Amino acid sequence: MTKNILFIMFDQLRFDYLSCAGHPHLHTPNIDRIAERGVRFTRAYVQSPVCGASRMSTYTGRYASTHGAQYNGFPLRVGEMTLGDHLRPLGMDCWLIGKTHMRVDAEGMERLGLSPDSVIGARQAECGFDVWCRDDGLWAEGPDGFYDENRSPYNEYLKSRGYPGENPWADFANAAVEGGDIASGWFMTNANKPANIAEEDSETPWLTGEAIKFIEQAKGPWCAHLSYIKPHWPYIVPAPYHDMFGPNHVPAAVRHDSERDNPHPVYAAFMNNRIGRAFSREEVRQKVIPAYMGLIKQCDDQMGRLFDFLERNGRMQDTMIVITSDHGDYLGDHWLGEKDLFHEPSVKVPLIIYEPSPDADATRGTTCDALVESIDLPATFIEVAGGKVPDHIVEGRSLLPFLHGKTPENWRDYAISEYDYSTSPMAAELDVAPRDARLFMVTDQRWKFIHAEGGFRPMLFDLVSDPNEFDDLGDSADHADIIALMYDRLGKWGRRMSQRVTVSDEQINAARTGGKQVGILIGVFEPDEVPPAASSKYRGPVPTKEKD
Amino acid sequence: MTKNILFIMFDQLRFDYLSCAGHPHLHTPNIDRIAERGVRFTRAYVQSPVCGASRMSTYTGRYASTHGAQYNGFPLRVGEMTLGDHLRPLGMDCWLIGKTHMRVDAEGMERLGLSPDSVIGARQAECGFDVWCRDDGLWAEGPDGFYDENRSPYNEYLKSRGYPGENPWADFANAAVEGGDIASGWFMTNANKPANIAEEDSETPWLTGEAIKFIEQAKGPWCAHLSYIKPHWPYIVPAPYHDMFGPNHVPAAVRHDSERDNPHPVYAAFMNNRIGRAFSREEVRQKVIPAYMGLIKQCDDQMGRLFDFLERNGRMQDTMIVITSDHGDYLGDHWLGEKDLFHEPSVKVPLIIYEPSPDADATRGTTCDALVESIDLPATFIEVAGGKVPDHIVEGRSLLPFLHGKTPENWRDYAISEYDYSTSPMAAELDVAPRDARLFMVTDQRWKFIHAEGGFRPMLFDLVSDPNEFDDLGDSADHADIIALMYDRLGKWGRRMSQRVTVSDEQINAARTGGKQVGILIGVFEPDEVPPAASSKYRGPVPTKEKD
Repeated sequence: MTKNILFIMFDQLRFDYLSCAGHPHLHTPNIDRIAERGVRFTRAYVQSPVCGASRMSTYTGRYASTHGAQYNGFPLRVGEMTLGDHLRPLGMDCWLIGKTHMRVDAEGMERLGLSPDSVIGARQAECGFDVWCRDDGLWAEGPDGFYDENRSPYNEYLKSRGYPGENPWADFANAAVEGGDIASGWFMTNANKPANIAEEDSETPWLTGEAIKFIEQAKGPWCAHLSYIKPHWPYIVPAPYHDMFGPNHVPAAVRHDSERDNPHPVYAAFMNNRIGRAFSREEVRQKVIPAYMGLIKQCDDQMGRLFDFLERNGRMQDTMIVITSDHGDYLGDHWLGEKDLFHEPSVKVPLIIYEPSPDADATRGTTCDALVESIDLPATFIEVAGGKVPDHIVEGRSLLPFLHGKTPENWRDYAISEYDYSTSPMAAELDVAPRDARLFMVTDQRWKFIHAEGGFRPMLFDLVSDPNEFDDLGDSADHADIIALMYDRLGKWGRRMSQRVTVSDEQINAARTGGKQVGILIGVFEPDEVPPAASSKYRGPVPTKEKD
Repeated sequence: MTKNILFIMFDQLRFDYLSCAGHPHLHTPNIDRIAERGVRFTRAYVQSPVCGASRMSTYTGRYASTHGAQYNGFPLRVGEMTLGDHLRPLGMDCWLIGKTHMRVDAEGMERLGLSPDSVIGARQAECGFDVWCRDDGLWAEGPDGFYDENRSPYNEYLKSRGYPGENPWADFANAAVEGGDIASGWFMTNANKPANIAEEDSETPWLTGEAIKFIEQAKGPWCAHLSYIKPHWPYIVPAPYHDMFGPNHVPAAVRHDSERDNPHPVYAAFMNNRIGRAFSREEVRQKVIPAYMGLIKQCDDQMGRLFDFLERNGRMQDTMIVITSDHGDYLGDHWLGEKDLFHEPSVKVPLIIYEPSPDADATRGTTCDALVESIDLPATFIEVAGGKVPDHIVEGRSLLPFLHGKTPENWRDYAISEYDYSTSPMAAELDVAPRDARLFMVTDQRWKFIHAEGGFRPMLFDLVSDPNEFDDLGDSADHADIIALMYDRLGKWGRRMSQRVTVSDEQINAARTGGKQVGILIGVFEPDEVPPAASSKYRGPVPTKEKD
């Protein structure tokens, strides 16, 4: 029976860069192995196509505008409940191996007097996880210091392996060498060079090793969040992966000149930023995409190592395996790079779930095209751990029924994703106030609608007649009804009950049918309108003072 | 100059039961005195027409569905920032004298390891206030025990004054006597009898005395929340107030037979509950309303005592005085009793603000008909205390400009109020799920619109042509445009940025224009695309190991 959960997240892995999802050149037999034994969800959406916000949704089971950590580096408010808060009381440990991108709410912690040294404080500071190792994998460094104020266990590992310098992550794992000089992976022109590191010391094998070490000693039931930085940039990979793929393996960019004709202003601003301009250059794609594919191939090989280990140790029989990503990567599609907006390569993610119990035998090797959201994962895990999903807190829904071949009642008709670009230069360029620099996606089985706060027209795509999302119908009068329907849905979603986190539906239903009799009598005119017992404290003789 | 804030809240005081607001028979010269020296807001709305939710909004400056404590007894989630959290860092103490109706989030406190014994824990448990005295004023008692699990300082006071028994609040302060037996105030037929208590020992004078004691010793700057239970039910008042008003002082009920013709289902359910049925009986109104007026008259007399004290002590020169309520009272209008729905007698409250500084001289004795919300009060207080309103947390806006004769830019076009009736028998009767038993009001200067979740049609009133709100236009095809506009507004409000409480707009704007240079280089192909300094850590020779 299912006892443990191995929750694997890659970073910036596109939904279609796996052979099980139809990639023509990238063979990922190990991930495919899990797909063959599990269910692959073909329409899984993240709640925000950017690391931090997406992850905070995945770890809390709540939409981005529900938890409020709507962008990278926005602290998750203290007290917001996470996976660990839900699983531990059910007897399941919850461990982190890798990245969360969580920023601690230091002000909130201080206001509540919580010390990061205490167990409670440490969990608050680590997004509810107990930390086997935390490494967000971005050890960028500039004139003002490090991007990440934590200490990198991966850098410590590299130093222990003899790599010199203070930041071997930057100097070796994410750089090639050219004429004795660093050829940094930060410069995409170097993406075709091999990273200057032994393959087994690079990040993905290192973290896989940590996961194996964790599992070897773990007693269970456990949920382990194995969270890789790759295939996220810097786009550079060690040999032999650096030249496994070449220009003939690079899919043509999914983009159309018509997209540059009168584009939505927000889309235009993203196309015109440095990233969009870079990925619109074919030479950039030709260098980056083979490296990106190499990184994924390495990930898949490490999955093989990990799954072999699980097989050998009997963990395949009692461990649910989830493979997903925090968002995709445009890679030049739609004249964009990175993620951020809501085209499928950005907002849709791979999601494969292997459920070892016999209940899931009927669905092995199948796909599911239901509209699934990342926030469904914590709900699923809570059910696996034997709990009932506290749906006044967790907004996602358990995917277990799908895995067991059942169709849940009233499954959602549309999925939601959000994006807060308030800190970006694009917001400044568009002169949009911080609270208006926000986008909302509503997608159903046919339409994808995007509302941009701040007075812009919406965007709309017909995913059936225009699966490549080239034709923005957001100002089409012929589609006014669809746009109105989407605004209705967004309105309903906006009114959702997301903050009544201290009272469950069960408590409310219990209160309806009586609750305690505590003497509150409203609307009662005569005493005989209520049973004597209900008002017994208000009847009888006036008390008198006992004799002293 | 303004140094302190005396924030007076009555409970269930209708906006129109004051002589300054035009009541024909109830003379309230002391409250009027403040109106003459301040500004009376004629369109002040609470964020929820029920004690607990309204107060949590007023104390946090946030809408009910933002803070989530959407009904009486729903705990305010731990960490939600309150008035005290905002004022104390500005050097202003924040004290409670009376009622808050706040329920502590005991589970959340325990999860974060917060003890109610610590200063931080005690403030969390008391809605951010330091407690001079807390008494919610509802010492109801039934077969299952007390409604309120706290201990009543007022009951302790009564005992110290020689009133016998365990609950003199119920037996004396809120009961008359008839033939040696208790004639409880819980039964409205007793509302015309004098409460069996010396007037000076009744709740309103007792709490006024506590306020005077507090102010006598307070150093300041302070904000004192003087929060009365009255004129809230039980409707009973000691002599001489019990017979100051009679049937000839009872205004005619504002109700119309047409309201019972095909009413909105939610409205119908409230009309048909025990309270609505009781207040539809004229004999109930004739007994209750004179007592209600007597309670208000007593409140006003106590205001005279309090303001005289302030005058004598020089506090009128340095203390802002706010007089308001947490909601109104239907008193039989619209075939309803109590509060709960959004007709003006329920959702609109008195709001009078006296600002002693010369800046406010030009507005003394004036009224203001801007759409004001209770959540504007904490914003106002933060400004009075010298702070800048943290508008990523506090959703209300400062009223100081109005007091200083200025019209704030972009003042709201509509006010919002919400009501969660999920725990009520009406929700059970209507078979509405807990998360659907919610109502949303949007009112502008002309229209009042109410959306009911759960598949009902909306309600709509034209406040100009139908100021009594008799004619529900919610299913009028002629008003489809107004209804659509109101849904747009509600949609926009639903998308408001309410949970991004850990990052301010200032921080976001700062990030737009640069932020720190920490070496994240995205979309850079060639090294010369960025200044050498920005990528200096990624250039130069590959580090080599120092000789051992």
